[in-house]
Amino acid sequence: MRARIAVNGYGTIGKRVADAVARQPDLELVGVAKTRPSFEAQTAQARGIPIFVADGANVDPFRSAGIPVAGRTSDLLNAADLVVDCAPEKIGKENAVKYKEAGKPAIFQGGEKAEVAEVSFNALANFDAARGRQRVRVVSCNTTGLARAASVLRSAYGVEEWEATMVRRAGDPAETDRGPIDGILPTFPIPSHHGADVRSIFPDLTIATAAVVVPTTLMHVHVNRVRLARPPATVAEVLDRFRATPRFHIFRAWEHVDGTPQVMEYGRDRSPSGRPDVMENVLWEQGIRLEGRDLHFFQAIHQESIVVPENIDAIRAMLGLAPDAATSIARTDEALGIPRPAK
Amino acid sequence: MRARIAVNGYGTIGKRVADAVARQPDLELVGVAKTRPSFEAQTAQARGIPIFVADGANVDPFRSAGIPVAGRTSDLLNAADLVVDCAPEKIGKENAVKYKEAGKPAIFQGGEKAEVAEVSFNALANFDAARGRQRVRVVSCNTTGLARAASVLRSAYGVEEWEATMVRRAGDPAETDRGPIDGILPTFPIPSHHGADVRSIFPDLTIATAAVVVPTTLMHVHVNRVRLARPPATVAEVLDRFRATPRFHIFRAWEHVDGTPQVMEYGRDRSPSGRPDVMENVLWEQGIRLEGRDLHFFQAIHQESIVVPENIDAIRAMLGLAPDAATSIARTDEALGIPRPAK
Amino acid sequence: MRARIAVNGYGTIGKRVADAVARQPDLELVGVAKTRPSFEAQTAQARGIPIFVADGANVDPFRSAGIPVAGRTSDLLNAADLVVDCAPEKIGKENAVKYKEAGKPAIFQGGEKAEVAEVSFNALANFDAARGRQRVRVVSCNTTGLARAASVLRSAYGVEEWEATMVRRAGDPAETDRGPIDGILPTFPIPSHHGADVRSIFPDLTIATAAVVVPTTLMHVHVNRVRLARPPATVAEVLDRFRATPRFHIFRAWEHVDGTPQVMEYGRDRSPSGRPDVMENVLWEQGIRLEGRDLHFFQAIHQESIVVPENIDAIRAMLGLAPDAATSIARTDEALGIPRPAK
Amino acid sequence: MRARIAVNGYGTIGKRVADAVARQPDLELVGVAKTRPSFEAQTAQARGIPIFVADGANVDPFRSAGIPVAGRTSDLLNAADLVVDCAPEKIGKENAVKYKEAGKPAIFQGGEKAEVAEVSFNALANFDAARGRQRVRVVSCNTTGLARAASVLRSAYGVEEWEATMVRRAGDPAETDRGPIDGILPTFPIPSHHGADVRSIFPDLTIATAAVVVPTTLMHVHVNRVRLARPPATVAEVLDRFRATPRFHIFRAWEHVDGTPQVMEYGRDRSPSGRPDVMENVLWEQGIRLEGRDLHFFQAIHQESIVVPENIDAIRAMLGLAPDAATSIARTDEALGIPRPAK
Repeated sequence: MRARIAVNGYGTIGKRVADAVARQPDLELVGVAKTRPSFEAQTAQARGIPIFVADGANVDPFRSAGIPVAGRTSDLLNAADLVVDCAPEKIGKENAVKYKEAGKPAIFQGGEKAEVAEVSFNALANFDAARGRQRVRVVSCNTTGLARAASVLRSAYGVEEWEATMVRRAGDPAETDRGPIDGILPTFPIPSHHGADVRSIFPDLTIATAAVVVPTTLMHVHVNRVRLARPPATVAEVLDRFRATPRFHIFRAWEHVDGTPQVMEYGRDRSPSGRPDVMENVLWEQGIRLEGRDLHFFQAIHQESIVVPENIDAIRAMLGLAPDAATSIARTDEALGIPRPAK
Repeated sequence: MRARIAVNGYGTIGKRVADAVARQPDLELVGVAKTRPSFEAQTAQARGIPIFVADGANVDPFRSAGIPVAGRTSDLLNAADLVVDCAPEKIGKENAVKYKEAGKPAIFQGGEKAEVAEVSFNALANFDAARGRQRVRVVSCNTTGLARAASVLRSAYGVEEWEATMVRRAGDPAETDRGPIDGILPTFPIPSHHGADVRSIFPDLTIATAAVVVPTTLMHVHVNRVRLARPPATVAEVLDRFRATPRFHIFRAWEHVDGTPQVMEYGRDRSPSGRPDVMENVLWEQGIRLEGRDLHFFQAIHQESIVVPENIDAIRAMLGLAPDAATSIARTDEALGIPRPAK
Repeated sequence: MRARIAVNGYGTIGKRVADAVARQPDLELVGVAKTRPSFEAQTAQARGIPIFVADGANVDPFRSAGIPVAGRTSDLLNAADLVVDCAPEKIGKENAVKYKEAGKPAIFQGGEKAEVAEVSFNALANFDAARGRQRVRVVSCNTTGLARAASVLRSAYGVEEWEATMVRRAGDPAETDRGPIDGILPTFPIPSHHGADVRSIFPDLTIATAAVVVPTTLMHVHVNRVRLARPPATVAEVLDRFRATPRFHIFRAWEHVDGTPQVMEYGRDRSPSGRPDVMENVLWEQGIRLEGRDLHFFQAIHQESIVVPENIDAIRAMLGLAPDAATSIARTDEALGIPRPAK
Repeated sequence: MRARIAVNGYGTIGKRVADAVARQPDLELVGVAKTRPSFEAQTAQARGIPIFVADGANVDPFRSAGIPVAGRTSDLLNAADLVVDCAPEKIGKENAVKYKEAGKPAIFQGGEKAEVAEVSFNALANFDAARGRQRVRVVSCNTTGLARAASVLRSAYGVEEWEATMVRRAGDPAETDRGPIDGILPTFPIPSHHGADVRSIFPDLTIATAAVVVPTTLMHVHVNRVRLARPPATVAEVLDRFRATPRFHIFRAWEHVDGTPQVMEYGRDRSPSGRPDVMENVLWEQGIRLEGRDLHFFQAIHQESIVVPENIDAIRAMLGLAPDAATSIARTDEALGIPRPAK
């Protein structure tokens, strides 16, 4: 029998998590909760996803839009074994109370503070820490990207210190009210909060982060400088290690991928999950170099989708559906069409 | 036995036409021709599409990239019943000579001048004109959008004069070398050449067009004012007529779609052909109004994909694979996942 | 003795009107009113402009920022012969009550509804209508651009009907919270409200307008089609007429100005008023054409500055400081460094 | 008698250097050289700047455009005591031969390789190194920004290592053919060449730089992490030191300047040199922090103008027109309207 999963919120992350749940052999999507009808509700309906209406919200707009309503959020919670909270930033904290009252384990997103949950989660980094927990927080897109890379580099080479500049997209593609149109906005303060968030996964990591916001909607780019304790002989060795790890994609020079627009074009061509998403950390073989003990590399992070497989793995860890991280990750990635790592 | 189709060129249009051909029950994709390896070649290979190398081009880069080469463009032509030319603008004219020498019927894209072919084509407008032709030109994305709308309005209400301003996207999403970043570029001269191109389909249409280029990659938007000879009583009647026509999508006000970013978000959610494309003319019910005899309306045009179903229909018309336009369009759209029009 | 002018509001328009007032030989800038300190307040102070604080606002932030406060808005009104309201959109209506209580004539901006004033104003179109009025509204940037062009074309050739598509900038350069970043937003409904606003100046003009918003900060572009009652023999004649009219700038083909970025570059090079503004309607000689009775032309409108000289002329009309429009316009333009029209 | 200066090239840098030369009390602008007429030529003419035509270029287009031609580039060189080369990137190297043949000292811009000149120059860092030289290269905008900051931090606190990420504007405002429109382009390789360029000024500095290109036209932003040898007690001390140095501007938190669009708005309001330029390194008091020995700070760099005052100082150093850097800088900045540093 498959575990029954509810998704509360149906925005950028929620709709992707719902799709991803529906594709897993061991999970069943009970339904999604929304507050108002929209074209996303229309598409959800066309896919046969039951739509529940938020407890306080008005049902009439759904009715007049011809969208069948399966019940209220409280009904959705009752029917589920676990809920994935995909509400807008900071609302998850309020929702946590309801989940507790309903006695349902819950996953929160990285827009919430770490305190919302018992543990902050990344599949590669600390899968086992989420076993049997009632409240788990999947860290944000930027933190997920850093945590994956840190998992690889820490275990293989040791990390003495890490500097990362996050060049952040100003809004998602459909967020038409986000700017700037022409300009760069430093994120105050410097260093930024992202370093502390990575330490919610790796408490002893020495990391300093800084961020700027730029007028793009596609992806974030991280510029990293990592001082390694035991550097390898060549950068090729590092690349091989990334290639052998799930959820890393390394472009080769001959592929002529000059930046995030072409990374997303690759995503559109490939459409692994039926969506044009790129759920891997994306690196370039010409965008990584070892100078002494310092490893310099770029990585691109698709803010809309990178946390999606992590949410699936968190479900399995919490509900005990997989014996270990490797098994869960492999099952998730196969269902989502994310290519297997090189042997 | 399915008709064997070659696709020469594998850029924005070529890769979509190749995918679309592969999805048709009565067509077979023989292969595609490219001049150099790239991530697109990689994806084509992963999908099992045979890759041919342009006659003059160097095969070595493909070999060192590990991409199997099925032959040369001349081999591809020999193996095909028909070739769809998707070469960069203005190259099609040179290619036409080769196709003639190989004795193969050929379809050209709207970047070529009308003189490259015997007839300029749009499925709704003049399907039968392409029957049995050796050289057919599928008109450009903007002209396709106008020709579809003109087909509907001319037959139902008569068109006395048409004014269209095309607000054009400056480049496709992956064209990282296209600007402007911040600014509007009028297209000189005014009126623009698009009106003449529409008359390659409807020679007697009185139409004046003007164009500006703006910093977006997603879609064009047309602002239309059409003076009708026999206007209907209400704009609702016009909307119903568009809804009953294939390849029109009308957003309703409650769907909260405020512009092209959300139209493409809808395309990403829906992914009709495995790609996040929107092959329909897109209208808004709150973006159309009738004032006296003048019909004012916006329509959005997805420049990357709108001509794809038209290419498929052109193949059928030329090779005699469908009895009429309606049959071909229905078959194409079902294979591509474009929703059927309302009854 | 110079007329004493107050400027209430010190944003995009307010700071330019204040500068423009200060440059006029017959006007004196009494001061400006602001609600909070900012870098603009800093610059105003550096230029010696007295800063007054809005009646309800907190004075402390100004003090701790080291910005001397000359008084309250009510003090500013008392000291002035006329106030130019440059408050954010829709606030002018509330301010109108205060101005009336203070017994001071007031000018409002085009963000307010026409009802806020006795007359809507454009210097070329209806200077005399503002004579001796207590409340005058300078129409918005787009309407000003259309009204200037309509003044020329109506009197010279007669206008039967006018279609204008406004391709609008999404935000001003410093409005970092305005989007979209990548996309086009149709403005609903169609036709747009701009036509009605032009009729606040020319009540009998047959004009239909439509608007889209695009990701740029620099200028609007209008795409016009005007059916003339008595068309001239050549378009050159129309160009000469525009050149002979104040506040029109026509670029020649050899100047290689391909769009709004280079128009603003011209403004930066020239800096007529000490600011990189372009207060004229901007046309291109290759961007205008006469087809039968239809005149097609582009014009670019600098949304930040085009209404500035109009505000100055409105002051003169209301206070009786100039015998006629031509005298006021010439005086304004000379003070602002706007080139004189060709003879 | 004033030193006679020629400016060869009249693009983004050339026109600003020409204006800046014309404002200096001890320099005379002999003229500028251009290859074709444009709106910039028009503006130059309006300001009374003699225009010379490049030796190989066609004079006719200037004549038909009505722009008087004062001679050829060779005439310009003959009439000058020194030439500032502002030709497009990589052309300066070819021009160097002509300057040598004409026996004239020359200044080159940072787009040229260091080898083009005897010394790479920054006024704060190494004014005296340019004394009496025949060929001096003013380093690029990014290197100038880093060199200024390094001058301050090295002398006051010692620098052990420096990491800088340059978030680069993709094109200047009027470069309408530059992209990307929506995306981030990593600059390969990593680390970038900028570090080596800074070492053309400070050969012993340990610095690693990386760069990404983003869709903006206004300014670059540098994200810096500097490990100090002898860190001060507080970051306030560092800020005071920057404030006391010429060509630094530090925004305070209450000024509400959230990024480069508002920095440039400040430039437009202030228009120090008649242009809306910001020739200073721009920092934010909320955008700098000291963590142990690591100083983290953002700085914004106006790519169009930051090297302009450096060119003026280089002229004085080469021709012996000022006794020391401080005298030349003060004279330059007063003439250009750059505010004096705090005492």
